[in-house]
Amino acid sequence: MASGCRIGPSILNSDLANLGAECLRMLDSGADYLHLDQFRDMIHFHPVALPHIKGFFIDQRVRHFVPNITFGHPVVESLRKQLGQDPFFDMHMMVSRPEQWVKPMAVAGANQYTFHLEATENPGALIKDIRENGMKVGLAIKPGTTVEYLAPWANQIDMALVMTVEPGFGGQKFMEDMMPKVHWLRTQFPSLDIEVDGGVGPDTIHKCAEAGANMIVSGSAIMRSEDPRSVINLLRNVCSEAAQKRSLDR
Amino acid sequence: MASGCRIGPSILNSDLANLGAECLRMLDSGADYLHLDQFRDMIHFHPVALPHIKGFFIDQRVRHFVPNITFGHPVVESLRKQLGQDPFFDMHMMVSRPEQWVKPMAVAGANQYTFHLEATENPGALIKDIRENGMKVGLAIKPGTTVEYLAPWANQIDMALVMTVEPGFGGQKFMEDMMPKVHWLRTQFPSLDIEVDGGVGPDTIHKCAEAGANMIVSGSAIMRSEDPRSVINLLRNVCSEAAQKRSLDR
Repeated sequence: MASGCRIGPSILNSDLANLGAECLRMLDSGADYLHLDQFRDMIHFHPVALPHIKGFFIDQRVRHFVPNITFGHPVVESLRKQLGQDPFFDMHMMVSRPEQWVKPMAVAGANQYTFHLEATENPGALIKDIRENGMKVGLAIKPGTTVEYLAPWANQIDMALVMTVEPGFGGQKFMEDMMPKVHWLRTQFPSLDIEVDGGVGPDTIHKCAEAGANMIVSGSAIMRSEDPRSVINLLRNVCSEAAQKRSLDR
Repeated sequence: MASGCRIGPSILNSDLANLGAECLRMLDSGADYLHLDQFRDMIHFHPVALPHIKGFFIDQRVRHFVPNITFGHPVVESLRKQLGQDPFFDMHMMVSRPEQWVKPMAVAGANQYTFHLEATENPGALIKDIRENGMKVGLAIKPGTTVEYLAPWANQIDMALVMTVEPGFGGQKFMEDMMPKVHWLRTQFPSLDIEVDGGVGPDTIHKCAEAGANMIVSGSAIMRSEDPRSVINLLRNVCSEAAQKRSLDR
C-alpha cells in the first residue's frame, strides 16, 4: 500500500502577494504537503522531444498557451526560509528541459521533483539526477498521454501524477475519464504513491479515491473555502476510507 | 524637463514569499514607484524579430539564459489588491512577444508597460496598444543596442529605459559606458523620462544623475540596506541636484 492519504493544496489561486502567509494558512488548516506549480515554456512540449512516446499528440491550443506565473526556485527558497524545514514541497515542473532546474530546486529546498514524461528525452537519467540531489521523484502525465508509457518507470519513482485537467488552462472541469489510468496504476503498482491534480474537490474526490489516488492536489476548492480545514479533512477522509476498503477487499 | 527625480525599487532580490509586505516596506521608506521585472523567454530575443534593428548582435550567453522568476499579471493583480490604487507599477517586460501581455497587465493594474525594443517587430503598434489600454509607455534598450534606434520612438513614449547591465544576469556591475546613451537622450529629448536599471546604488548614482537619468531603479542597494529610507533619499537627492544644475546651465 502507498503510505496514507495526503492532501496537498495548490496555491496557484491564492494571494500571490502573500505566498508565505497563504502557505502557513494551508499548513495550519491541516495540509499534509504543498503542491507548487511551475509553468514555463509548455510551448516546447514537442514531438521531437518525445522519442520514447510514439504517436504523441500535440494539442495546438496547449502548445501556444503559456501561463504567466511560476513558482521558480527563488520563490521556493523564500518559502522554505519562512516555513522552516518541515513542510513537504512537491514541485510540479510543467517545464521544458526539466533537467535544468533539478539542482537549483534541490538547493532552494524542494522535497520532491515532479516532472512531465512528455518533457524529457531521457526519464531514466533525470530520475537518477533527482535522487542524487536528495529529492523524491514524481513523474507526471498529461491527459493525452497513455498511462502505459509511465509503467517502465513506475518502480524507479516515488509518485505518479495523473493530470485530471490539461495543464495550463485554469477553471477546467475534472476529467473523470482519467480515472482508469489511476485504477490501472493502483492495480499494477499497489505501493506507488498516485497523485491527481486538476478540478479535484468535494464533488470529485470520490472518483479519485475509488480509483486509487492517495495524494490529492486541490486548489480553489480549498483555497477559496471559508473553512479550508473542513475541506481538507473531508478530502482526506474520503480518500482514507476508499484505501481501507481496497485493503479489506484484497 | 522631465518631471522630477523618482526612485523605483526593484523587488527582485526581496523576500519573494512576502512580496506585498516587501512592497509596502519600500513605499513606507519613500519609494516613488515600484519597478517590477518580468522575465520570460529572453531566449527568443532573436534577429528575425528585429528587422528594424540592423546588425543586432545576439550574445549566446544571454540567448540561453532564462531567469527562473517572473512577476506575471496574477502577481501584479494580487499586489494591486493589497497596495491600493496609489502606487505606480512600472512593468519591465523582458519577454518575447510583449504584445501578448498588454491587456492582462492593464487589467491587473499596471500603470506603465516598459517593453524591449529588441523584442518586437512593430514598436509603433505596440505603443498604440499600450496607450489604448490606459497605460504609460516605457521603451527599453539592452546594453548591446545603440541608442539611436530608440530615437524614432522617443516622442511617442513616456519613458526610455537604458539598461546598465545585461538583463537576466544577477550581481553584475554597473556599466558606466552606457552613460553616453543617457546623456544623448537627455540632450535630444529634454522632457523625456529616462530610467536606468542595473547596478545602480549610492556608488553609481552620480554617474547616472550627471548623465541625465531621472528615474532610478535600484535593487539590492535599497532592499538589502538596513535603512532603505536613507538610501532612497540619497539617490533622490543626488539625482535632483544634478537636474537642478542642468536646468541652471541652460
